[in-house]
Amino acid sequence: MTTNTHETEITADPDIPLIRITREFDAPPEKVFRAHTHPEHVVQWLGPRRTEMRIDHYDCRTGGSYRYLHVSDGIEYGFHGCFHEVRPSELIVQTFTFEGEPDGVALEKLNLEDLGDGRTRLTSTSLVDSFEDRDAMMVSGMEEGVREGYERLDELLAG
Amino acid sequence: MTTNTHETEITADPDIPLIRITREFDAPPEKVFRAHTHPEHVVQWLGPRRTEMRIDHYDCRTGGSYRYLHVSDGIEYGFHGCFHEVRPSELIVQTFTFEGEPDGVALEKLNLEDLGDGRTRLTSTSLVDSFEDRDAMMVSGMEEGVREGYERLDELLAG
Repeated sequence: MTTNTHETEITADPDIPLIRITREFDAPPEKVFRAHTHPEHVVQWLGPRRTEMRIDHYDCRTGGSYRYLHVSDGIEYGFHGCFHEVRPSELIVQTFTFEGEPDGVALEKLNLEDLGDGRTRLTSTSLVDSFEDRDAMMVSGMEEGVREGYERLDELLAG
Repeated sequence: MTTNTHETEITADPDIPLIRITREFDAPPEKVFRAHTHPEHVVQWLGPRRTEMRIDHYDCRTGGSYRYLHVSDGIEYGFHGCFHEVRPSELIVQTFTFEGEPDGVALEKLNLEDLGDGRTRLTSTSLVDSFEDRDAMMVSGMEEGVREGYERLDELLAG
């Protein structure tokens, strides 16, 4: 376990159907970026602790795509999308669909900001096309999964 | 020229930063779909008449990506994105960036509805993360390009 656990802020935008997540990490942008792009790293932290992650494919480059499963209590939850743009240590723009709701899709932007002293601020936004869908995401257990995932990421980065 | 030119409706959503386009075509969904997915067809109609379209790559399948140029008066305008989902004759979900504004990105959904009698209603939405960017798209000459492109698509479908 790391000793510094930073707060994960998750907010619903008041004007557009978007969720914004901010979180600091005690690691430089290069390392936080690598933890998001290399499937052998991603599989170690993405999602809540109680789930097992199985990667179908994870080709994190501009024009690439991904699909993975979260397995919890023997039930498989599939997720997939494409990578619109991947700028090293700075930006990942991708789409995201939970396969339990195959007509839903979010546009996600991940920004990494170098805070100096080996620290990084991550800002992630998730945009959908209705406030109803956005609000459903907020109450779906997403928050717990994000917070726990970032705690696991802290541990990976400290390792 | 076709004799039936349908109206292209382009509206700005009042509640979210989205543009919605609807247009009917005198061709069945399979044929309208093919005109969107096969680069050798796309190049014949996408964009205003005065532009020449050059395709860098156009891999229209779930998880694929594209990049093309519109050339007008010797100036090249680049566009690229990835295909989140492609469902035959029904749906294309993709991202879209105009390379003149490389940090901007839209999430686009194209739906085709079978109206019977060899007719199709196309509904296309384009979602961005600010009303300012959405309104800028509305006044950028986008409307003229879309209308003229669909007139060219009518001609291709009638051919």
